[in-house]
Parts: sequence; C-alpha cells; structure tokens
Amino acid sequence: MSDNEILTVRRTGSRVDLTLNRPNQYNALSEDLLAALKAELTSLAADSSISCVVLSGAGKAFCAGHDLRQMHGQRRLDYYRTLFAACAEVMEAIVALPVPVIARVHGIATAAGCQLVGACDLAIASQDARFAVSGINVGLFCSTPAVALTRNVPAKPAFEMLVTGDFISAHTAEDWGLINHAVPADQLDAQIDSLAATIAAKSPDAIRRGKALFYAQREVHRAEAYALAAEVMAQNMMDDNTAEGIEAFLEKRAPVWR
Amino acid sequence: MSDNEILTVRRTGSRVDLTLNRPNQYNALSEDLLAALKAELTSLAADSSISCVVLSGAGKAFCAGHDLRQMHGQRRLDYYRTLFAACAEVMEAIVALPVPVIARVHGIATAAGCQLVGACDLAIASQDARFAVSGINVGLFCSTPAVALTRNVPAKPAFEMLVTGDFISAHTAEDWGLINHAVPADQLDAQIDSLAATIAAKSPDAIRRGKALFYAQREVHRAEAYALAAEVMAQNMMDDNTAEGIEAFLEKRAPVWR
Amino acid sequence: MSDNEILTVRRTGSRVDLTLNRPNQYNALSEDLLAALKAELTSLAADSSISCVVLSGAGKAFCAGHDLRQMHGQRRLDYYRTLFAACAEVMEAIVALPVPVIARVHGIATAAGCQLVGACDLAIASQDARFAVSGINVGLFCSTPAVALTRNVPAKPAFEMLVTGDFISAHTAEDWGLINHAVPADQLDAQIDSLAATIAAKSPDAIRRGKALFYAQREVHRAEAYALAAEVMAQNMMDDNTAEGIEAFLEKRAPVWR
Repeated sequence: MSDNEILTVRRTGSRVDLTLNRPNQYNALSEDLLAALKAELTSLAADSSISCVVLSGAGKAFCAGHDLRQMHGQRRLDYYRTLFAACAEVMEAIVALPVPVIARVHGIATAAGCQLVGACDLAIASQDARFAVSGINVGLFCSTPAVALTRNVPAKPAFEMLVTGDFISAHTAEDWGLINHAVPADQLDAQIDSLAATIAAKSPDAIRRGKALFYAQREVHRAEAYALAAEVMAQNMMDDNTAEGIEAFLEKRAPVWR
Repeated sequence: MSDNEILTVRRTGSRVDLTLNRPNQYNALSEDLLAALKAELTSLAADSSISCVVLSGAGKAFCAGHDLRQMHGQRRLDYYRTLFAACAEVMEAIVALPVPVIARVHGIATAAGCQLVGACDLAIASQDARFAVSGINVGLFCSTPAVALTRNVPAKPAFEMLVTGDFISAHTAEDWGLINHAVPADQLDAQIDSLAATIAAKSPDAIRRGKALFYAQREVHRAEAYALAAEVMAQNMMDDNTAEGIEAFLEKRAPVWR
Repeated sequence: MSDNEILTVRRTGSRVDLTLNRPNQYNALSEDLLAALKAELTSLAADSSISCVVLSGAGKAFCAGHDLRQMHGQRRLDYYRTLFAACAEVMEAIVALPVPVIARVHGIATAAGCQLVGACDLAIASQDARFAVSGINVGLFCSTPAVALTRNVPAKPAFEMLVTGDFISAHTAEDWGLINHAVPADQLDAQIDSLAATIAAKSPDAIRRGKALFYAQREVHRAEAYALAAEVMAQNMMDDNTAEGIEAFLEKRAPVWR
C-alpha cells in the first residue's frame, strides 16, 4: 500500500482494510475515488483467500458524500448520469462482494457517505459519530442514498432524514437499524477487530454461500426465498468444511477449516 | 374556508392545513368526508405553489376510522366495494401528492384513522395519543389499514395490533415506526410548525423529485431502484435551484430558491 | 394425546397446543418431528372449529434446530434437499394455517428453532430465553432461517446474527421485532393464555380472513395490496358475525359470535 493513494489497501491475514484517503476533503467520493473503490472491490471479489473487508475513512470523518465542487464544475446531464451510475456500481459491488464488508464509522457519514454505511453488510460506529442524508440542504435530494437507507431504516424515520437533512446520533442510527452498534470512540477499533476476527474464524464456504443467499432471498417472494435457501443449505451440507464442523461439534472440539 | 365544512382547508404561505371536521363523530370517514379529501388532494396535486400539507382532526380525536353507523345501514357487497375502494384512493392520493403530508395526531387514531397516519409521509403525535386497528372488535379485520401499517411497523407487532385490536401508546408508536415523534401535548403545534417550516425552506424541486422517487424505489428490486434513483439525481442536478444551492454552499451563504 | 409422542397435541376449547416433545434432544427437528408437525398442521388447517395454536417445547428449551447427528449420518445431496424442503414446508404450513400461531419460547431457540419463532404469527418469550441462528458455528449458514429472520428483523442485526452465530437476549429479540413480548418466566403461561383467549374471543371469520390477507398483501406492490385488502373488507362486511359485531357496538353490548 501507499499512503499517498486516495484509497489505501492493507491486508492482515484474511482481513482487508480499505481506507478512503482524502482526509482534507472529508473523504468525498470524487470520480477518482469511486473508480478506485470499484476497481479494488472487483479485484477482491476474485480473491478466494479473504474473509472480510473493513471500510474506514482517514482523518476526521468517515465520508462526506460526493465532491460537490467537482460536480458543480461539470453541469451536463450525461456527466451526472455517468457519475451517479458509477456511485451506484460501487454500492452494488459491496453487496456483490462474496465476503462481509464492515463499515468503521467515525466523525460524520453524510449523503453518499451515509449511503456507504447503508450498503455495507455491517457497521460499527463511534458513539459520537453523526449521520445525515443532507443533499436536500443544497437542493439535491439524496435519491441513491435513499435506496440504501430504506433497506435498513423504517419508512417514516428515513423519509424525515431525507426531507430535513438533519443529523442523527450514532445511538439513533443503532436504534433505527442503520448501524449494528454505537461504541465509545476508544473501543471502536477493538470492536471492529473482534467482529472481523469472529467472521474470519468461520468456515469461508458458509460465509460466502450465506452472504449471497441473504441478498438473493430478500428480493423475491417468501415461497421462492425458501426454495432458494433450501437449495443453498443442501449444497452447503456437502462442503467438506461443514462435515468437519459438524464432526467437531459432535466430538466437542474446535473445527479446523480447510 | 368555511368552518361548517366537513373538511376545512386553510392556507398559510406554502403550507396547507387540512382538518377533518366532524368532531362529534370523532372525524369518522363518512362517504362525504372521503370524497372531500379525495377532491382536495386531487386539487392540491396540481398546485405547484404548495410545499407541504398538515392533516389534523377537529375536536377530541384525530380520526376514529370509518363511520360504522353509515356502513351498517347499507348492507350490500357493491356498496362496500365502492366504499373501501374510495378509502384506498384517499390513502393512495396522499402518497401520490407531490409534497410531503404530515399527520398531526392527538386523541385517538383508530382503524382507518390509524391507516391515515400510516399513509402520511410523516407523523407527529401528542404523547397522550393512542393508536389501534380496532375493527377486529366488531368482527371487521382492518385489512386496508394493514397495508399501511405493515409498510411502517415490523410484522409481529403489526399482526398483534390487528388481531387484538388493542391500543398502543404514542411512545410505542414512535418506537415501532408508525410515527416520527411523540411530543408533549402543549408542544404538538410548535413541533408541527417547525417540521413544516423546515420542509418549506428546501428547494421545491428537490422535495418533489424526492418524494416521488422515495415511493417508486421502494416497490422495485434494489438494482432497479438504484437505476431509478441515479436518473432522478442526474435530473435534479440540472435544476436551477440545485446550481444555486451548491453555489451558496461553496460560498458559505444561504441559498435563494426560485 | 399421548405423552410419548414426539409431538403432543392438546385441545382446550378452540385452542390447540402443539408441544415439540423430544426434550432430551432439545426438541431438535428430526425427520419424524418435521413430518409430525406437517401432518398436524395440515389436519388443523381443515378444522373450522379452532381459533389459535400455541407452539411450545417440552423440557429445557423451545427448539435447538435440526438434528445434526441425524443429518451428518446421511451425506447425500438428495437427502439434504428433501430434508430442507420438508423444513420449509412446515414453516409455510404455519403461515398457511388459517388461524394465528403463537410461539411460546423458553430456554433456547436456535437455528431452525429460531426460524420457527420467526415463522409463527406471534411470539412471547420468557425473558431469560435466548435466540441464535448458530449454524455458522458448524459451517452451515442458516439459510432457511434467514428467510424467516429477515421478514421480522432489520437487515443489519439479522446479518450480524447470521454471520456471528451469537445469541441475543429476549429483550433484544423484542426490540428487533423477532418476538412480541419478553415476560418474566413465571408469567409466560399467563401471558400466552391471555393472548390466546383474546384471539378466541374475536369473530372467527374476521381472524381467518385477516390472517390470509395479512400475508397476501405483504408479497405484492402497495396498489395491488390495497385492491386485495379492499375486496377482503367488503366480503368481511357481508359476514353475519360482522353485522352482529357492529350492531352490538352501536347498542353498547358484547357481540355474540355464531
């Protein structure tokens, strides 16, 4: 990794840390940063040796959304179509990544930064972090963030955030389901480490089959969801790691994954 | 406006107050009141000068649902089909209205009155208000209210309300997502005023584009939702008000909407 | 009923108690137990005299999920496909049963046992009960439980439960919507009795029409949901019991259902 990159990548065992690294711009998602995220997520999707990804922001904030100055300089419909499509592709690449992505949130997560939190599978925030979909304050409704937000947060609180642009606290974000846990700032890294280590200790086959199934079954009717899930479980039972896991359980010992 | 109308309409700046005005019947949704609501919402949908609508009830309650006495007097399947279709049309007209609708809830909101709260985009209630889908107590399952309720409240609490008919408090309604906030009775109007003023201060283009997108994207798969949302954001960026909003932000001044 | 059956069935008035009765195996869902549940639910679906079903577990726990020892002994894809399809059929039979099913949860509800709680319409738990989708610990992602879990619990908490396998408390289960209420252990039966009696006291026509509508309308777009619900309400208004219910209400007396 190189610390002067806009996206730093650090690998520790099977865990990968991606850090948005435009601290002076509160890690605003410039075209370059979106492209770097997309490229890195595409590359990681093909890497069968990783167990999870942690997404963080360098400096004072997690992410302040799009780069308004850059956007304002290019007032063309085609440019904006390309830009927002690129942003949505990054969010979908997080969902499509075969392993869990954990957002590590501190400072602020606003607009597309709040969307990033919603798109991640899991999120832990410092209890002094704050969240908003604040585009409405400059006349830009956070439409793509609304997609991620409403798939995590109940309708009325989500709508209120979108039309007021108001910040919510990490405690409220946890209460509404936008994040998993709000923790004291000095315990944030320890909690992230613990969750990443817990996931890394599971059978990789089960985690990968499970994440894909989790999202697939949400998009279909309940009966079809059960059919998809039953087939995934049957296939999962045939994995060598699952035979090992069940044997270890019956023998009251720890499993050894291949 | 006329105070002897069953639905009073009062305009203050860009805000419109609609008040259900059958206080002696707890604002029960008679055929006439449903028709008046439908006509008014249809008229407001074409009015580009309004920023939001506040829906209230006159007298002791927000709304006690359908008018059981009137319904009981007309025991014909076709009559009921027409009546419940008219009720559903009012609820859908709230969703289809281009600007946010805020429910101002006091006293009770029961059956179709509780459905009205669910159908509104936002809701603030007096903390002594109570909510129920109580048709089950007279042998009439609140089926159309269930549509609005389950799009706000998690499945098990919603099902319990529907089969027991029991009241829940405003605090519980907030906790479950049926309303945005439960506030002391003497602060209800101030909180409603504040929320309406906050919305009125935003770019009308952004609010109108956003409300339509919010509901459209909820009904489709996530990938399609992102495609819809990206197009809305691109169009939104081309609005003159959005250029003004971003310039004002970069220049650290308040925007002036056209 | 016979106490040496793996599934005991007890009838009290219009209430039916089904008790998983493999206490030494924490009521693990063996092939035989799944078959017994399916047969009993199919039989009850045709019984117009029942008002609700209470599902409990004998011994120390509600249900610990599948029988891992039995599963491990039959390592064939076709066997697993048949087994998980049978499990999904039981869950769908609960949804398809015309009357509400209440889970009475004590001890633990894990993996397919947690799925059972999710599949029931209502759930009340002892406050010392604990819930987990723990298959991930043996390398088997709880895919079919995920279908029930995500239809009750918000996305991020559900995903965390599925990839960590960690237990949550009854209090947390209530907070997230997996159960209706967590109550002191010594009040569990009284609370179950009260809820069952409340449901039994309603018009059976309304309860049966309502449960079917509740699930049908969740699976379709909002406009279609309103159309379905309006038709159910119109039909419901024509029931003799509804005429009696409304008359009793207008006359301020208790209704007498036929």
